Amino acid sequence: MTELPGLKINFERFKERLNEINKIGAMDGGGVCRLALSDEDKAARDLLVQWASELDIALEVDQIGNMFLTLPGNSGKPCVMTGSHLDTVGTGGYFDGPLGVLAGLEIMEVLIENNITPKRPLKVANFTNEEGVRFTPDMMGSLAFKKGISIQELYEIESVDGSVKLGDELERIGYKGDSEPGCFPVSHFVELHIEQGPVLETEKIDIAAVTKVQGIYWTEYTIRGRAAHAGTTPIKLRNDAGLVAAELTSFIRKKAVELDGAGTVGIQEYSPNLINVVPEKVRITTDIRHPEQDKLIEFQQAVDIKLKELSAKEGTTFDRRERVRFNPVDFSEEVVSKIEEKAHSLGYSSKRMISGAGHDAQMMAAVCPTSMIFVPSVNGISHNIEEFTKDEDLERGINTLLHVMMDLLEAD
Amino acid sequence: MTELPGLKINFERFKERLNEINKIGAMDGGGVCRLALSDEDKAARDLLVQWASELDIALEVDQIGNMFLTLPGNSGKPCVMTGSHLDTVGTGGYFDGPLGVLAGLEIMEVLIENNITPKRPLKVANFTNEEGVRFTPDMMGSLAFKKGISIQELYEIESVDGSVKLGDELERIGYKGDSEPGCFPVSHFVELHIEQGPVLETEKIDIAAVTKVQGIYWTEYTIRGRAAHAGTTPIKLRNDAGLVAAELTSFIRKKAVELDGAGTVGIQEYSPNLINVVPEKVRITTDIRHPEQDKLIEFQQAVDIKLKELSAKEGTTFDRRERVRFNPVDFSEEVVSKIEEKAHSLGYSSKRMISGAGHDAQMMAAVCPTSMIFVPSVNGISHNIEEFTKDEDLERGINTLLHVMMDLLEAD
Repeated sequence: MTELPGLKINFERFKERLNEINKIGAMDGGGVCRLALSDEDKAARDLLVQWASELDIALEVDQIGNMFLTLPGNSGKPCVMTGSHLDTVGTGGYFDGPLGVLAGLEIMEVLIENNITPKRPLKVANFTNEEGVRFTPDMMGSLAFKKGISIQELYEIESVDGSVKLGDELERIGYKGDSEPGCFPVSHFVELHIEQGPVLETEKIDIAAVTKVQGIYWTEYTIRGRAAHAGTTPIKLRNDAGLVAAELTSFIRKKAVELDGAGTVGIQEYSPNLINVVPEKVRITTDIRHPEQDKLIEFQQAVDIKLKELSAKEGTTFDRRERVRFNPVDFSEEVVSKIEEKAHSLGYSSKRMISGAGHDAQMMAAVCPTSMIFVPSVNGISHNIEEFTKDEDLERGINTLLHVMMDLLEAD
Repeated sequence: MTELPGLKINFERFKERLNEINKIGAMDGGGVCRLALSDEDKAARDLLVQWASELDIALEVDQIGNMFLTLPGNSGKPCVMTGSHLDTVGTGGYFDGPLGVLAGLEIMEVLIENNITPKRPLKVANFTNEEGVRFTPDMMGSLAFKKGISIQELYEIESVDGSVKLGDELERIGYKGDSEPGCFPVSHFVELHIEQGPVLETEKIDIAAVTKVQGIYWTEYTIRGRAAHAGTTPIKLRNDAGLVAAELTSFIRKKAVELDGAGTVGIQEYSPNLINVVPEKVRITTDIRHPEQDKLIEFQQAVDIKLKELSAKEGTTFDRRERVRFNPVDFSEEVVSKIEEKAHSLGYSSKRMISGAGHDAQMMAAVCPTSMIFVPSVNGISHNIEEFTKDEDLERGINTLLHVMMDLLEAD
């Protein structure tokens, strides 16, 4: 193994590129909006192509538009990959995505300028449509990479506004490549990302080694009662859909605490939504998460049973639609330990953490040993123009990734 | 007192007029939409003018557009008045309003065709803008009649869409009269109305004698927490505006049962209303009602205290806006007893009831001894195209009103 104790990234260079790419889709107040396969996404991809070209780095695009930069290795061994995504949600994403892609590019340039040819090829990925805002499902490029869905099926997906098909948009922006997704072997995958939560900041920790991604169940319920005059309908004769939704919301909080999971009611829509009318219909969504599969199922079942009980008591009915069922994904102990070891050797504090959000890495975990590095998010905010990570935290994260990658690139 | 045991209304004639007037603003499915001072309101008013003219009944319009039909009495005593309103909400109102006005017209015609000149003048009122949908406040014409607000202030009120002023609309439809509202004395007021609730139907009672109108407090709260990622934000670090709104909603139900009042959360609006984001802001309204003033205040205070507690616990803030503060109004025991007596003499079952909704009669109660007659609403539904009262119930209600009015008209 080549010893590179002094190797460091050029943070100014990284930051310049981050600021440059975030001019594309820039929003007032500091955020960016680059929805997948939009003109902004194309412009960001084009900039990545330009940078790769300037450094004489080979670049390939697969059929779903995933972009891979490759620095060749000096053996015939499978590559080590890092990367993330350049697309964002509609309300922010200065770091959520670009950090992981541009950190990979920076590491490549460090190797190039130090004339290092690693044993294994280094690949940096920009996965298509991680956010899933304009086209669902999310984590689409990495899903295709792990062969979790067919290309033809993906091409037929319509944008959420129904105006275009994904295959046509890929072609329009010029990123419908020829190679089949996942057609090359990968030995390890490591993704650098902001935490998007407040834990590292609150606990004053520099680096997280991510051990798993918790499971996520999204369910949409429509509760139906009876509209009634708020003044003339005695309480005992009401079938109040809003009351049932309210009691379910309270129950989800109680159960989340009890099971040490996460439970959120993010959408609640009353109908007719008039001050003096008992709500007839409430649309409500539940976002249930837990790192343990059995607890996740227990949580979801408890919610469904509770809603049945509440509905029976109030005389309402409901229907339910399962929108997302992602089970928990375990990351590689080998990679997690390596992240901890490298953070420690660089003098950074670290902790093991479970990812609350979904990431491309959870798809890659089905392909090869995988983990993620998290850096702190100020106030835990993401998907927002206030999303922010301090320079020193970004730098620590990229340097940790550099040293983890070097180890993996030089492994036999 | 003139004895008129056999006097009965001509139900077919009443029903024809009701159907005729409800062609104006007719909605698909059976409801009507005649917002105050709209073209439809003008057309309904014009039809009332035509019917009065055909019967040679004098009609006057006051400065706020209240219409009064007058059948002269044979003494100099103050008039007895009945009536209601021809305007409706946007979502229904086949009976809610027109019943009371056209019942009054029918009673006038019964007296005319029987050549009865009562001791006191009989007046039938069509009060302007009872519903308060297009212009607030509601019960506007009767509020002006009791001199609860100045005419100039009313003329300046803008429509809720901000497009027109009330004074200009009154003038445009030709119903800005000359006389000052409330410029003539009234000895008694009785309003016939549908119940708008399920009590009479559920208990199989023909007629309600309304003893009072419960007080109504409307309050709008905006609860502010912090938007947070549903997956990455630990429960203990959340400030969930939705949870606070949910627990307040449950509390209002509990307190309504405890105090034997009515409490409704009719509006609940989440922001940003996304499946995986903890709601940052929730707008919620409360509709609190109670027939007893002290209980109404106790209820409202309990809601405010509870919201403070919930907000302190969850780390949210809120602001509140008082939208309506109507205190309970007592009706006249003299008139209530008379309604019971006349219903009984006609062979109808009756009960005393508190009105859950607001009505013009509650304004008139400040002017003279007042009460209301309620007839059953099928399924308790109103403000809806399904609003319906059976013919036999309408007929019983109008006949009861006829006999109550006869008594009051002949009183010394």
